[in-house]
Amino acid sequence: MSEFVIDPSLSSGSDMICELSLSSLALSSNALFPWVILVPRKNDLREIIDLSEEDRMVLMREISLVSHVMQDVFKPDKLNVASLGNIVPQLHVHIIARYKNDAAWPDSVFGKVGLEYKEEVRLELIKQIRNTIEKYNE
Amino acid sequence: MSEFVIDPSLSSGSDMICELSLSSLALSSNALFPWVILVPRKNDLREIIDLSEEDRMVLMREISLVSHVMQDVFKPDKLNVASLGNIVPQLHVHIIARYKNDAAWPDSVFGKVGLEYKEEVRLELIKQIRNTIEKYNE
Repeated sequence: MSEFVIDPSLSSGSDMICELSLSSLALSSNALFPWVILVPRKNDLREIIDLSEEDRMVLMREISLVSHVMQDVFKPDKLNVASLGNIVPQLHVHIIARYKNDAAWPDSVFGKVGLEYKEEVRLELIKQIRNTIEKYNE
Repeated sequence: MSEFVIDPSLSSGSDMICELSLSSLALSSNALFPWVILVPRKNDLREIIDLSEEDRMVLMREISLVSHVMQDVFKPDKLNVASLGNIVPQLHVHIIARYKNDAAWPDSVFGKVGLEYKEEVRLELIKQIRNTIEKYNE
């Protein structure tokens, strides 16, 4: 199997948090919303159904784990979970913590202008998410 | 267990196609995009993680089945799969067939103004989707 290559648009717009069994988990660079992205580490995937049936079940478990972690860390009013890929076709799943007073509510966050993280906030969030995932995996 | 009650905003904005083992499948009333909605028939669900682990696996299988059906019927350039619920909080999953020349590409379809189906088109699409699902279930 050839080495996994992440789309540069995905890697440049996010920071790696950790690797799960199927997917890499990254924090979106858009500070307006607590927003993470699951990227299954297999080449030539565009749709969820391009994954094997077994890997789809693993993806659902990873979506569930990360959803719990986002609830624990951010206490959102709602989670948004989406696999779109209109702009970056490589399969990736957005998991976004939404608040009734956030910058886009009740619209979706997609296509909104972003805001950069302050470096210390970004690093702190990555640490918190990583630590919470580790607690679930204990 | 109390009888399942679908949110009136979901039922009024769509037409029932068929019932799968966990979810009901409905066609969105927005004729701009081939757009179906899976609604798990259990009360008090808002997030995917409100489902039991077993039901999450069933939901993933239903997302996969419907994704294949949408590809077969509509030959889209991309599928969009999303569980948002900012406006209608009852758990539902959008599966949308997208084209590079559709009314919103490459943006998401959410929050765009809709267009009504002509009755005969709507009925024909429901029939086509239902027949294709039956083929997969044979």
